[in-house]
Amino acid sequence: MSYDCSFLTDVLDEEQVSVGESDLDSHAADWGGQEAGLGVRPDAVAYPESTDDVAAVLSAADERGVPVTPYAAGTSMEGNAVPAFEGISLDVTRMNEVLAVRPDDFQIDVQPGVMGSKVDETVERHGLFFPPMPSSANISTIGGMIVNDASGQKTVKYGEVGDWVLELEVVTAEGEVLTCGSKAVKTSAGYNLKDLLVGSEGTLGVVTRATLELEGLPEQIRGGRAVFPSLEDAAEAVYDAVSSGVDVAKIELVDEVAGMMANDYLGLDLPDSAMIFVEFHRNHGIDEEIEFFRTIVESHDAVSFEMAGEEEMDALWQARTELAFAIQSYDPDLKPLHPGDITVPISKLPEIIGYAKDLADERDLVVPCFGHAGDGNVHYSVLVDPDDEAMVEAGEELYDKVVRRAIEMGGTATGEHGIGMGKRQYLELEHGEAGVEMMRRVKRAFDPNDILNPGKMFPETMEEGGRVRLDADD
Amino acid sequence: MSYDCSFLTDVLDEEQVSVGESDLDSHAADWGGQEAGLGVRPDAVAYPESTDDVAAVLSAADERGVPVTPYAAGTSMEGNAVPAFEGISLDVTRMNEVLAVRPDDFQIDVQPGVMGSKVDETVERHGLFFPPMPSSANISTIGGMIVNDASGQKTVKYGEVGDWVLELEVVTAEGEVLTCGSKAVKTSAGYNLKDLLVGSEGTLGVVTRATLELEGLPEQIRGGRAVFPSLEDAAEAVYDAVSSGVDVAKIELVDEVAGMMANDYLGLDLPDSAMIFVEFHRNHGIDEEIEFFRTIVESHDAVSFEMAGEEEMDALWQARTELAFAIQSYDPDLKPLHPGDITVPISKLPEIIGYAKDLADERDLVVPCFGHAGDGNVHYSVLVDPDDEAMVEAGEELYDKVVRRAIEMGGTATGEHGIGMGKRQYLELEHGEAGVEMMRRVKRAFDPNDILNPGKMFPETMEEGGRVRLDADD
Repeated sequence: MSYDCSFLTDVLDEEQVSVGESDLDSHAADWGGQEAGLGVRPDAVAYPESTDDVAAVLSAADERGVPVTPYAAGTSMEGNAVPAFEGISLDVTRMNEVLAVRPDDFQIDVQPGVMGSKVDETVERHGLFFPPMPSSANISTIGGMIVNDASGQKTVKYGEVGDWVLELEVVTAEGEVLTCGSKAVKTSAGYNLKDLLVGSEGTLGVVTRATLELEGLPEQIRGGRAVFPSLEDAAEAVYDAVSSGVDVAKIELVDEVAGMMANDYLGLDLPDSAMIFVEFHRNHGIDEEIEFFRTIVESHDAVSFEMAGEEEMDALWQARTELAFAIQSYDPDLKPLHPGDITVPISKLPEIIGYAKDLADERDLVVPCFGHAGDGNVHYSVLVDPDDEAMVEAGEELYDKVVRRAIEMGGTATGEHGIGMGKRQYLELEHGEAGVEMMRRVKRAFDPNDILNPGKMFPETMEEGGRVRLDADD
Repeated sequence: MSYDCSFLTDVLDEEQVSVGESDLDSHAADWGGQEAGLGVRPDAVAYPESTDDVAAVLSAADERGVPVTPYAAGTSMEGNAVPAFEGISLDVTRMNEVLAVRPDDFQIDVQPGVMGSKVDETVERHGLFFPPMPSSANISTIGGMIVNDASGQKTVKYGEVGDWVLELEVVTAEGEVLTCGSKAVKTSAGYNLKDLLVGSEGTLGVVTRATLELEGLPEQIRGGRAVFPSLEDAAEAVYDAVSSGVDVAKIELVDEVAGMMANDYLGLDLPDSAMIFVEFHRNHGIDEEIEFFRTIVESHDAVSFEMAGEEEMDALWQARTELAFAIQSYDPDLKPLHPGDITVPISKLPEIIGYAKDLADERDLVVPCFGHAGDGNVHYSVLVDPDDEAMVEAGEELYDKVVRRAIEMGGTATGEHGIGMGKRQYLELEHGEAGVEMMRRVKRAFDPNDILNPGKMFPETMEEGGRVRLDADD
């Protein structure tokens, strides 16, 4: 159904409201949602320019029961920012100011629509960086990273984006402005609403300002690549490195299928074999860490191990950096089915990858695996011909089995891309009926009329075709 | 008023329920509450031995509207574990088993009543440690640390206790058992209820099992002490060290008043001057870090700087380790007024300490300051003669002014001891009316009948004498 959004021009200026076709189309898609055919077109797009604008839109929409789906760069993978219901797409990309930098406190205050790369550039001149920044910095916003609890390659050393968020200004569904957290690096004053908002996928409130914690740039950065005879050797080497406490800033695993695709795509003269990509950040003693790591890769029969300084390491990393393009280009008939992103306790890393491989072999499917292996985080792309129904079905089954196995192992259905619309069916499996019921209660506490990004995260909306609103009487 | 708790023997064995005077007395006190005269005696003490026991007590108490105040070691500082209302003190200290150690995953599963020191001993044999462990490990439980969001000396390097909690089993007020978080080191599946429970002071649920993350013991540990001509020099040196990225595992500041007390108490031959205590944890390159730190303390005119290895460093640290006893013994007529524990953005550290000092001078009060300075965390003891009303009043005013100034600076009223009963009047100042109202809603979502640790955290219960229950119609 469509909603009357004409009130928007009462609370915003005219140029802040769009009902143009291309605007409506572009806000009906994100990276994951578009591929998966999830979501609907909004009735209108609102472009707030201030906290007051956000509060005005939300409070007016709440009074009228009009759904509001927050939107930023649209790079989510699980349809998180795509409307499940018509209504308003609340696009925060005009709120893209750096509000303050306090280098003495290692802090930056930003609006939600600021791109990651703008933070990088702003703080670099102070000798600082935002340690958990995902590698999507140049295409993703800070607000999106926060509400999706993003993480990435450097999480193995520095933690997740949420770990570096000190304070959030948030507008609730009813238009109230909250400040959660503290500019002090630690606080135990009241409930930790800040970390509840992190990863809430725009269903509990709209972030309008974030204070991020920064760190001094490391004095030494070096990167490298190790090639292994088998996936097992590579996975065991990752596990050994992490469990020995080698101070890696990144440790990425690429399996032999993904490695082959990268070699083909880039024309590299490397064996089509499993590889590990590493990066080290240190102020002192980087050579000792690298040598420590070398003994580990050698004990797992590495075919080669090469390291380079900050300038030259891009070449060594190329097979990892361009892997997504390599996978997409591998075979024009084959498309990745879903973003597969699960995380398991680190000791289970070799087992879960082996399990995915066995399933792929049984079904004769091509399934490149890669990811932030140091966290036990595995991304797997199930490549299928969309026109081949049996193949799609076999792929869906594989995808589903890997998620379920990860949860059985004590892991999670989604390491860093949230639930969105794509993974709602796993929430109860992972958190139990009582856990999901408590999440529902929290949702109602923040958003009693269920106007904020409705149709996301909770499983019941799927059972009835993805269009049933969260019912307060459930 | 007193509550009929006779139902307890229906849901627990007889030896799990006590109404003995000494049991009731001991559960009417904790470290902070006792001194401050906060709280009341419970009607009964229940000793659950399993998750099922906790669920049975809570579900029966919830049906009857009987208050339940969770209790463990009783080392809280703000009356957090002391009943504000009669009813049941739920003592989890019999739930003191280590349930599993998974060294391959760097994980340990414990019941809430396990002492910190038991975790230390259990994991040390695997070459592991629990990095954020507070120095109260031998007197405090893991459950208490989690629900008070404890932190301590090593937080400057490793973060807070909550940062190392992966998964929690929690029983809600209504007796439902939830599992929050994940045994994977990162997850973005649903709302982060785990970090909401951390620091909730037993008002949202009772933790019955925790999975903690561990780390490999550092290969090199060294500790040391630097003495400075003035507090300003010492505070500036802390700030310089932290902002230069020196990899300290502990960096503690002791002001000249506290230093004088420690020297007196221990008979040390040190100047009565401000001191910094440091500890370094490294696998490699510890000497470089120490030399880097030396250049910083020398640039701030340190009078002396001494370092020692793991065995001998205790002697250098003695003035910090035994400071609490030194303060207590300083003058038999003077008692510390309240635990003063605020945290400010690190650049404000010298200013907030200077402010406390000026207030003390104006009022002719003795106020030793010390604390986890690397986090901007300051503990200040206002020493007063309890029989001298004017002195107590001046002390209370000082205490209050420092908390308010910390909040003005963007800091927090309580860095690591929670709100409890002692700091409820600051919650709204720090989080605003809308923030506190949202916390209230979260409380109602978890505990609709307000049976779990009622009378804590929220300010309205104070306005009417500390005995008014949280009203759902507020």
